[in-house]
Amino acid sequence: MIDFYFWNYTRVVFGLEAEKELESHLELLGDKVLLHYGGGSIKQIGLYDTVIKTLKKAGVSFVELGGVKPNPRLSLVYEGIELCRKEGVTGILAVGGGSVIDSAKAIAAGVPYDGDVWDFYTTDKNPDKALPIGVMLTLPAAGSETSTGSVITKEEGELKRDTGSPILRPQFAILNPKWTLSLPWYQTACGISDMFAHIMERYFTTVEHVELTDRMAEGAMKTIIHQAYRLKENPDNLDARSEIMWAGTVAHNDILHTGRIGDWATHMIEHELSGIYDIAHGAGLSIVFPAWQKYMLDKHPQKIAQFAHRVFDIDYYQDDIKETARMGIKRLEEFYRDMELPVRLKDAGIGTDRIREMAKKATRDDKIKLGNFHKLDSKAIEEILHLAAE
Amino acid sequence: MIDFYFWNYTRVVFGLEAEKELESHLELLGDKVLLHYGGGSIKQIGLYDTVIKTLKKAGVSFVELGGVKPNPRLSLVYEGIELCRKEGVTGILAVGGGSVIDSAKAIAAGVPYDGDVWDFYTTDKNPDKALPIGVMLTLPAAGSETSTGSVITKEEGELKRDTGSPILRPQFAILNPKWTLSLPWYQTACGISDMFAHIMERYFTTVEHVELTDRMAEGAMKTIIHQAYRLKENPDNLDARSEIMWAGTVAHNDILHTGRIGDWATHMIEHELSGIYDIAHGAGLSIVFPAWQKYMLDKHPQKIAQFAHRVFDIDYYQDDIKETARMGIKRLEEFYRDMELPVRLKDAGIGTDRIREMAKKATRDDKIKLGNFHKLDSKAIEEILHLAAE
Repeated sequence: MIDFYFWNYTRVVFGLEAEKELESHLELLGDKVLLHYGGGSIKQIGLYDTVIKTLKKAGVSFVELGGVKPNPRLSLVYEGIELCRKEGVTGILAVGGGSVIDSAKAIAAGVPYDGDVWDFYTTDKNPDKALPIGVMLTLPAAGSETSTGSVITKEEGELKRDTGSPILRPQFAILNPKWTLSLPWYQTACGISDMFAHIMERYFTTVEHVELTDRMAEGAMKTIIHQAYRLKENPDNLDARSEIMWAGTVAHNDILHTGRIGDWATHMIEHELSGIYDIAHGAGLSIVFPAWQKYMLDKHPQKIAQFAHRVFDIDYYQDDIKETARMGIKRLEEFYRDMELPVRLKDAGIGTDRIREMAKKATRDDKIKLGNFHKLDSKAIEEILHLAAE
Repeated sequence: MIDFYFWNYTRVVFGLEAEKELESHLELLGDKVLLHYGGGSIKQIGLYDTVIKTLKKAGVSFVELGGVKPNPRLSLVYEGIELCRKEGVTGILAVGGGSVIDSAKAIAAGVPYDGDVWDFYTTDKNPDKALPIGVMLTLPAAGSETSTGSVITKEEGELKRDTGSPILRPQFAILNPKWTLSLPWYQTACGISDMFAHIMERYFTTVEHVELTDRMAEGAMKTIIHQAYRLKENPDNLDARSEIMWAGTVAHNDILHTGRIGDWATHMIEHELSGIYDIAHGAGLSIVFPAWQKYMLDKHPQKIAQFAHRVFDIDYYQDDIKETARMGIKRLEEFYRDMELPVRLKDAGIGTDRIREMAKKATRDDKIKLGNFHKLDSKAIEEILHLAAE
């Protein structure tokens, strides 16, 4: 176990009438709120009306900025920053999924910052001031509702980049599993893939003596798999929706990260994929993760074998650790396929022609290496993407 | 899963040089600190000197109150409240284990309160104001370092009572596994028993659809058992010390409690035991918990069987759930015995003569029932204590 600092101060309200607690939390956002959201889904489920009614009832003045898209765009962030400054906004209420929350975080960090907010996503500089953020979560996936991170895409150059800071954790997050009932299956599945990947990124570490977090992570992964199958059989299963929703938060609230070093190479590689091809993040992850694991088979088979054994109940095959690990990867692919997620580039209609370009972009032209489980240069990333093409 | 509110804002600094972070956290306690501790152990390990040096270096003025005993006493709490008021103390630094922290919480709640602080422990009233608390933890056990609770014993009448409030969570908790290396084995074992019980109290619930927290709790319990055996073989094993220390916090930081209703009857029964006989809390728990499980065998064998299967790897015995559950209880007792903990009243030199008295006190003369897994009246508690005598 390595030394760590753990501080997650987000207030989580979880329940089937959670929206009732919005009013009592609004004071955390000050007296002028930016209501930030995506498209029409929050209107379809009636949540938009509920929020407007609550804001008015509480006497909180607000301005609106909708239109956040999946893989949220820098241009809208700039628009949000300008709007907040003009209107004297004191806090942001993000109503939606991870894209809306990440966009809100970028705006929150940009408002008090003199320079270009994109600096935080492209240099070592991290935000040390930000407007307070509140969340009403409609899509269990990114875990951004209590996390420190934000991922934004700059349209020009198809650049998808991330930043992080303790001050970007939302002040509160309101979660109602009912809001997720109307999600199309594909979005539900992509969310499941995203949260599962968040646990795997932390799980695959070379840090030793991390039994507590290993075992809790394994329990969370087993749960996600089981509840995902239940949901696939019946998307109206509110109990399974609840388990999946809370798992999405726990996967990324850092409790499963304590004392460890995460990998995150798969996320970085996926960012290049979805930056160029604009596919869903969860779909990109289900393509890249098995390929990444295959690449790691020769390097660190032990941890993948432990994953196979403890998460997928695969018995250790004689003394052949690598074979055990390989069976685990097979089962992971099976799980993704059963969830109707792509597991090869071609499943998402992606060819191999831009693999070299993605590998170069991911490594900033070979200036950096990705990951910690095993450091990856652009050659290694090419190899992984070719494994994803097979 | 039931609706829940989760908010744990304590900053945790964990590591082999964690004391270096004390200075940067002192501002959270204001400009006049009460340094609260127990006996000589923090002096023996050099921690007392480190703290004094840091306080002086930071230019923070402070007063001291040592002498906290296991099962911390109300009389010292009163003394602390008076001292804090007289000296204009703005925050409390608790250096020690759960008893010191619980005592600090009582003082913190008592200082701004007009009435008798004991009210919080004996009525429905909970503290809504308290001095900020910082912790340097030397004994992994109670989990009080990030929890909302406090347990205090009133000498007169041998009453051990608890209170809880979100404002009683410490502002920061500094954990260095090295500080636990010199603990005598019995204290180490009692701490292990306490944290294990904190998980079981949450685990045994009749709330359904709690797979995520069930599985994470099972992972934490498996880890505690494994690392406890490693530590028993070699108490100097710092990796095992680290795992156990962090497990003690996670067991009680409420993440394993989300969406559930805990039981806590065993804790309440144990409080009567240690209130009268002044035995270690962890030793009382290892006596009461197996007896409580035996009492529950006829009522809720399923959850105990799941515990047996998933935590102790006991195969389900044909379709005999109760037999599976019974084997789990046997293994739990074995674990306690291997840790040199008592599992019967007589192991702690306690007779059966005051069982009726304890059952009456625990139920406030049959005015309340204990627990949630299955509600216990004084007759049931007597039965459990007699099972602990067999």
